Amino acid sequence: MFIGKVTGSIVSTQKIASVKGSKLLLVQALNVKADDPTALVETNRTAVVLDYLGAGEGDLVLVTQGSSARLTDWTKTLPADAVIIGIIDAMQIGHKEIYKKDA
Amino acid sequence: MFIGKVTGSIVSTQKIASVKGSKLLLVQALNVKADDPTALVETNRTAVVLDYLGAGEGDLVLVTQGSSARLTDWTKTLPADAVIIGIIDAMQIGHKEIYKKDA
Amino acid sequence: MFIGKVTGSIVSTQKIASVKGSKLLLVQALNVKADDPTALVETNRTAVVLDYLGAGEGDLVLVTQGSSARLTDWTKTLPADAVIIGIIDAMQIGHKEIYKKDA
Amino acid sequence: MFIGKVTGSIVSTQKIASVKGSKLLLVQALNVKADDPTALVETNRTAVVLDYLGAGEGDLVLVTQGSSARLTDWTKTLPADAVIIGIIDAMQIGHKEIYKKDA
Amino acid sequence: MFIGKVTGSIVSTQKIASVKGSKLLLVQALNVKADDPTALVETNRTAVVLDYLGAGEGDLVLVTQGSSARLTDWTKTLPADAVIIGIIDAMQIGHKEIYKKDA
Repeated sequence: MFIGKVTGSIVSTQKIASVKGSKLLLVQALNVKADDPTALVETNRTAVVLDYLGAGEGDLVLVTQGSSARLTDWTKTLPADAVIIGIIDAMQIGHKEIYKKDA
Repeated sequence: MFIGKVTGSIVSTQKIASVKGSKLLLVQALNVKADDPTALVETNRTAVVLDYLGAGEGDLVLVTQGSSARLTDWTKTLPADAVIIGIIDAMQIGHKEIYKKDA
Repeated sequence: MFIGKVTGSIVSTQKIASVKGSKLLLVQALNVKADDPTALVETNRTAVVLDYLGAGEGDLVLVTQGSSARLTDWTKTLPADAVIIGIIDAMQIGHKEIYKKDA
Repeated sequence: MFIGKVTGSIVSTQKIASVKGSKLLLVQALNVKADDPTALVETNRTAVVLDYLGAGEGDLVLVTQGSSARLTDWTKTLPADAVIIGIIDAMQIGHKEIYKKDA
Repeated sequence: MFIGKVTGSIVSTQKIASVKGSKLLLVQALNVKADDPTALVETNRTAVVLDYLGAGEGDLVLVTQGSSARLTDWTKTLPADAVIIGIIDAMQIGHKEIYKKDA
């Protein structure tokens, strides 16, 4: 799974029928810097992911890719290769909290 | 899924029989810039994708990759790893519209 | 799918039994340049792919990767993740032909 | 499989139901340097992986990705694309030991 | 498939039960240079692969990735995403032999 930051959303009316009604979010992939493990940095990689958990802009999310993205109740038969499987509350590196979601 | 810009098309007459008749489009992958989330930039990555939605040159499209590309009515038995699942109408980042398809 | 240029071939006698007899070609992945959509450029990425269409050196080919590479009559049970599904005759970007196979 | 170094952990309460209870670790992908095969270097690539072996921070682990990540007793039905399949004790390059886990 | 050079091996005693007994090799991915198709160059990308063919250090091997890595007699039920499917004897680019395994 990779860590994504929800940055926006996509509207598409001409779609494969089975994906109609699914919410499409824009996420930017995040990495932890090798030389500074407390720094979470946005990469230039953008993905479009399905969301069934109610993620909002600014949230950090866990994204599953590939065939495993079809292993949720909503995606079993969808031509989709990326889905949010969790909204991140907190991340720890060592004993340091490097991210905490606003309450 | 990734965002692709349709740039052209491919003609191939010597093909695996099952893919004959399928439309093959060239797409260039797009990313949102990490340091300027209103800028949509073309990358150097080129993919060839199947299209059953009638996408045309200049359109931005959603592309599904891998085994999930076979989860449409047309691709179930095809040796294909990328298909357009939607033509993008609009993209929002925050309250800003960063892309709108010409009507 | 990605565009590959056939550059050479591989000989391997110690192989998993099921892939014996399959032709193994070297291909170099090609991209269209983002800032010059008429320029087709070779990348440094090299792949080894199965060929059942009779592709030859210098040909541009369409390569399917992953589990979908097993969706041909010859590859159903092979431990192979890349197969040529078409030999490219021509590529158009806008109204410009950027590649044409020699007759 | 790739080599990952466990650097931290993730807390996520809003999750797809099936992944509740699974331990989520942060790993940084490691490579051996091409020009110095005794140097193991952290890359900037960060992944989130499932752990059922009790890996701890600082451990080097083997990570399986994609559909194969579902081939363990715990992950068969999970929307997960990365799992730790082994904790690394030692790595040898030539006759040189380039890594040894603390006893 | 990609071309890998076997550089070393990995010892892991705490493993998912099904992979116990499998030999784990370190390989460095190789590419042919776009601007010098006779030069085979090691990249910085390191993978860990299963070997059932008896590959040794210094050998060039063909590696299959993803779900197709499970299509051998030994890997059908393993949580493994990379396996050696052949040991390379020779590689030709044009009429030039760019690699030949020592006899």
